[in-house]
Amino acid sequence: MDDLKKGSFTLPGEAGYEALTLKLAKRWGADAIRDSDGTTLSEDILKTGFSIYATLCVIRKHNNWIKKHPDCRQQCILSTSPRVSEGDTLEIPLMADFYTEQFRVNDGADAMARWQVYDRTADKPLPEERWEYHADTQSVRIQAAPWHSYTVSFFAWRIWEEISMYNHTTNGWDTEHLMQLDPVYPQVRAYLKEWLADWCESNPHTDIVRFTSLYYNFGWIWGSSPRNRFLFTDWASYDFTVSPAMMTEFEAEYGYKLTAEDFIRGGRRNPGHDVPDKARLDWMAFVQRFVSEFTRELTDIVHRCGKLAYVFYDDSWIGMEPYNGCFRQMNFDGLIKCVFSGFEARLCADAPVPVHEIRLHPYLFPVGLGGAPTFASGGDPSRDAKAYWRQVRRALMRKPVERIGLGGYLHLAEGFPEFVDCMETISGEFRRLKALHQKSGVYTLPARVAVLSVWGKLRTWTLSGHFHEAADHDLMHIIECLAGLPVEVRFIGFDDLKRGVLQGVDTLICAGRTGTAWSGGELWQDKQMVEIVTEFVHSGGTFFGVNEPSAVLGYSNTLRMAHVLGVDIGEHSCHGGWQYTVQTPAHIRTAGFAPPAHPSAYITGADTEVWLDADGKPALTRHAFGKGQGIYAGGWRYSPQSAKLLLTLLTGDAAADAVSGNPCVDCAWFPKAGALVLANQTDLPQQGSVSIQNKRIAFSLTADEMQVTDVK
Amino acid sequence: MDDLKKGSFTLPGEAGYEALTLKLAKRWGADAIRDSDGTTLSEDILKTGFSIYATLCVIRKHNNWIKKHPDCRQQCILSTSPRVSEGDTLEIPLMADFYTEQFRVNDGADAMARWQVYDRTADKPLPEERWEYHADTQSVRIQAAPWHSYTVSFFAWRIWEEISMYNHTTNGWDTEHLMQLDPVYPQVRAYLKEWLADWCESNPHTDIVRFTSLYYNFGWIWGSSPRNRFLFTDWASYDFTVSPAMMTEFEAEYGYKLTAEDFIRGGRRNPGHDVPDKARLDWMAFVQRFVSEFTRELTDIVHRCGKLAYVFYDDSWIGMEPYNGCFRQMNFDGLIKCVFSGFEARLCADAPVPVHEIRLHPYLFPVGLGGAPTFASGGDPSRDAKAYWRQVRRALMRKPVERIGLGGYLHLAEGFPEFVDCMETISGEFRRLKALHQKSGVYTLPARVAVLSVWGKLRTWTLSGHFHEAADHDLMHIIECLAGLPVEVRFIGFDDLKRGVLQGVDTLICAGRTGTAWSGGELWQDKQMVEIVTEFVHSGGTFFGVNEPSAVLGYSNTLRMAHVLGVDIGEHSCHGGWQYTVQTPAHIRTAGFAPPAHPSAYITGADTEVWLDADGKPALTRHAFGKGQGIYAGGWRYSPQSAKLLLTLLTGDAAADAVSGNPCVDCAWFPKAGALVLANQTDLPQQGSVSIQNKRIAFSLTADEMQVTDVK
Repeated sequence: MDDLKKGSFTLPGEAGYEALTLKLAKRWGADAIRDSDGTTLSEDILKTGFSIYATLCVIRKHNNWIKKHPDCRQQCILSTSPRVSEGDTLEIPLMADFYTEQFRVNDGADAMARWQVYDRTADKPLPEERWEYHADTQSVRIQAAPWHSYTVSFFAWRIWEEISMYNHTTNGWDTEHLMQLDPVYPQVRAYLKEWLADWCESNPHTDIVRFTSLYYNFGWIWGSSPRNRFLFTDWASYDFTVSPAMMTEFEAEYGYKLTAEDFIRGGRRNPGHDVPDKARLDWMAFVQRFVSEFTRELTDIVHRCGKLAYVFYDDSWIGMEPYNGCFRQMNFDGLIKCVFSGFEARLCADAPVPVHEIRLHPYLFPVGLGGAPTFASGGDPSRDAKAYWRQVRRALMRKPVERIGLGGYLHLAEGFPEFVDCMETISGEFRRLKALHQKSGVYTLPARVAVLSVWGKLRTWTLSGHFHEAADHDLMHIIECLAGLPVEVRFIGFDDLKRGVLQGVDTLICAGRTGTAWSGGELWQDKQMVEIVTEFVHSGGTFFGVNEPSAVLGYSNTLRMAHVLGVDIGEHSCHGGWQYTVQTPAHIRTAGFAPPAHPSAYITGADTEVWLDADGKPALTRHAFGKGQGIYAGGWRYSPQSAKLLLTLLTGDAAADAVSGNPCVDCAWFPKAGALVLANQTDLPQQGSVSIQNKRIAFSLTADEMQVTDVK
Repeated sequence: MDDLKKGSFTLPGEAGYEALTLKLAKRWGADAIRDSDGTTLSEDILKTGFSIYATLCVIRKHNNWIKKHPDCRQQCILSTSPRVSEGDTLEIPLMADFYTEQFRVNDGADAMARWQVYDRTADKPLPEERWEYHADTQSVRIQAAPWHSYTVSFFAWRIWEEISMYNHTTNGWDTEHLMQLDPVYPQVRAYLKEWLADWCESNPHTDIVRFTSLYYNFGWIWGSSPRNRFLFTDWASYDFTVSPAMMTEFEAEYGYKLTAEDFIRGGRRNPGHDVPDKARLDWMAFVQRFVSEFTRELTDIVHRCGKLAYVFYDDSWIGMEPYNGCFRQMNFDGLIKCVFSGFEARLCADAPVPVHEIRLHPYLFPVGLGGAPTFASGGDPSRDAKAYWRQVRRALMRKPVERIGLGGYLHLAEGFPEFVDCMETISGEFRRLKALHQKSGVYTLPARVAVLSVWGKLRTWTLSGHFHEAADHDLMHIIECLAGLPVEVRFIGFDDLKRGVLQGVDTLICAGRTGTAWSGGELWQDKQMVEIVTEFVHSGGTFFGVNEPSAVLGYSNTLRMAHVLGVDIGEHSCHGGWQYTVQTPAHIRTAGFAPPAHPSAYITGADTEVWLDADGKPALTRHAFGKGQGIYAGGWRYSPQSAKLLLTLLTGDAAADAVSGNPCVDCAWFPKAGALVLANQTDLPQQGSVSIQNKRIAFSLTADEMQVTDVK
């Protein structure tokens, strides 16, 4: 039982709090200690026999070098908000919309050559001779058409590394603003390699170099107004990889030219929720190769020094997506992912890397991501920790990771003894689950699920960022449900359909709004996709569509799979509707969650079964098609109850082996270990029962409790 | 006062109920008597000195002639619902979806030459050699691509005139099914002219020939399933004007060919809510000219016989729209419009014709349009009559008509004495309003409003059909509000914008969903429209946008007028939102109605004033622009309160002259007559006050009451 008390836990050490560090290390069973951004481990701790992680941010903390090489800073393309011309000339100040602590106009010749002024009313770029830049006022003067709206897209240096900027702001620091290097320049790469080699040599105590993280932060554009500080925030955005140099290299390799508008798209930019065009896909692939090739040079240096290289998968994560096809080539020994939700644990657990480590929340920070207090007056970090752990635990019941850990400033835990207790429970439960997975596979129902999106494998177990950042997308909720369900899940793209991937699939899920990457957007224009999915269902498969699945305008149906779903959406004035009677099958239980209706959904024929409706619209339907079926839900939101309902839709069976009758209790059956894990997904007591091979097991769990029962 | 008791009222006479007819004529002050469909006036009534209207349906009651000339029946193009091919061949039965009492396949050579089989998956017509028609099974056999969906568009004879079919069904008749003639054929026109001349000669008692109505019914396609009887119903549809002959004549004149798909549009057809393409506009203009030219031949016959010609504007109204530019040419002496709502009264009142007559509801029928009982057990016709009258009365307060009347079977009134009383009150109120309008203009506030749609003048005071048929369109509600407001209203199209019509306009209204005729759809792609409306607002005008005004995809904003409104809509993931504080100006009163929020609306900058919000989205906003402003509302629904709110938005003043402080009471001030009409828009007592030239007038009204007060 010893290893249930100790190991697999990474503690953030804190200089000046050595005794506390050692005390909590013992309490939580830590076997490794790491420094955090802004802390340095003391000699006392370095000598105590723990594995030592050292946090290394490759691109920042080089301000002195950067000051000598200002052209090696990172940049991006900004675009002003549209301004209306009231006459023949219009003056647009470039920086009016933007946070001047983050950006500075780059009017260098290579940058200026790629600036674009756009007539947004005519939807055309303005010829260069019709505008000029005035450096004195940092504005562009335009020969305008009256009443047209114009934007200027221009290059800006980024003069404050964004995570540093965020931490500064959040924690009220007043240290120097850190800038970031752009490794697109050969002299930067040479400098960094030398610096890393030096660092490794001068840090002999470090066992594991923890890259936090790589080079290019997700796009995070701050605005000038406190009323709209975060103009654009997208985990999936490659906006901060852009520079004239990178564009030039891209163009040399791909043989076509990019424009500012490829990145700006009318101010919409390229959020990960949109369907990418060819230029975007090419750019991403190019950056991914660039990132992986240079990173391999760095991990080689670390390995040559006898250390391991882990990478923290947040912040400057662009180009290092674990499922991008060149991740493995970077040769990391471990992947560390901070997790709030179940899907993030699965994202980490499934990545092709030897060690998977998750950093639990809350951070040891005074306030959390949303600005609410955590380790501060008014905060309740143990409540938060339990809430996050409930989500993460159900994912770990399906798929283990090797390690857990915390982040932040350890001394903040001192005032919160309940949190210290709670972390002891959590680390114990984690080790118990890990041990069971080591002994036995976990029982999975015979339901093979494929989640379809335009991103396919690249976005395995993710949409864009954390749950709350994508919470208005149904697929986020579906994925969070799936993260803890006893089914096989894979993530596929439209090209995979052509490759026959549906052969091993029982249910294909397509969930999202029209035009998004999640519903598939214009990729459904390809009739081959319709053919393949239609044949799949006709042969016995299930197509599960949520909200506006397969929607694309210009065809006789808005939903391209309407013939399978028996449901369509859209403007339908003057057309009669099919009357229906709602008949909810006995196995469909919706206490706690019923899918909402889509406001313009309607059934397309007499043979669509309406299982639920709302506001007179179908909310959950089934339509038999050949040997298979289409199931439609108007929307989806995660809850323990909705996860259970989803499982029922996937299996057609509400009482399968090792599926709890109480949806608030998750089960994981480890047949070889003869163990059944029961986990209470709520902060209330829960009772119920579960059957395994016709044997009924009653349970009673306290709030948040996890029990392991013998089932031999 | 005598004329407040008598005149301007048309009573439906009923054979066999002569005494009742005369009694009610006296009670309600009727001065004219007409027959209804299915009744014939007796000699007794014809001799009593009333004006006599005779109802004449031009196209039906010619079954004997039609049986000899079956090729002169009307027809239309039907399209089967899409069917999925499971293999290389697919058999589609043509009539499976359709009501066989209404339609019969027309497989004549001229019709067959225009049939189309469509691959809806590939969105392409199938070459003729890949399908064949089998007359024995009335089905089309297709050489199909597996898993594609196909439709067949084919000609069908219409074998039961639709209004007769509806009356039959509603009233349980079992008389012969009446068919309809198509005047597109010269022999039909010759026959009808002879028949009409004969009829006029043999009906010397008739003073007014009341055409009920002309030739082409609005599109009304009935389905085979009782669960979806009304497959398609559109007041504005020209679907029933289509025949191979009409298409051939069109093609000869316009020089291009039409296909079935021009009318079918992927099964969507051409509802009046959609933006028309050129073929549709050309077709409509062609039919309108055809209808007006032939009709003029008929009215000339009537006039030659010394009678007047009125036309009933319902049912077979296609091609005779009062605002289509060739209506006047038909030379009618009167227009009769059945009305449930205020906008319908205005539609009638503004038409270019000497006499305007409205037919009040409820009809003297056992059941109403929705199938609920009226003059039958469980019905309350006086309640219904009051509710409709409230709506119609407020319109008549703004603009008079010359006559009112009823329709249906008079004997049904016998069991409903309250209805008889109520009609006496209504006819008295009507005559009083008419008399006031004759004495004096009605006071109008200095607010000139233009309603913009792609239809412009053609759809003056209407969208498509009755209120309930278009009730999911915001503009229907706006127009019903406007019908009773003391403002100038005109209806304009996009071409009118180019012609400078905004010079005489204070507020331009654009209200509707993306892609509809009401929001303007792709007509907003024309940058000139944006320029014109932008300049209009900048110079001091108001652009009032509702729901998705000026929405069109493919530009930097979804709403083309976003720069004026300070609001945009649409998928906006990853972009930050402007924080706002709701500040409702004192004059904006929303008790009883607050505009709903659009689910994806957001303000575009710091200077948009949010007057109301809902669900965290702006619901009513104002944005100053130049000397003018953009006002945005997320949606609109008619109520007395919303009408008042709209008036306030149009005038910027909640307490203007002759505007009641109680929104449930409408006022009309007749300055020359020194009279103020106060009308209670509810079935509850109402109190309040109204000011006229700084003189405050308190009022107290019983339910439904109309008062006329001296203001000298």
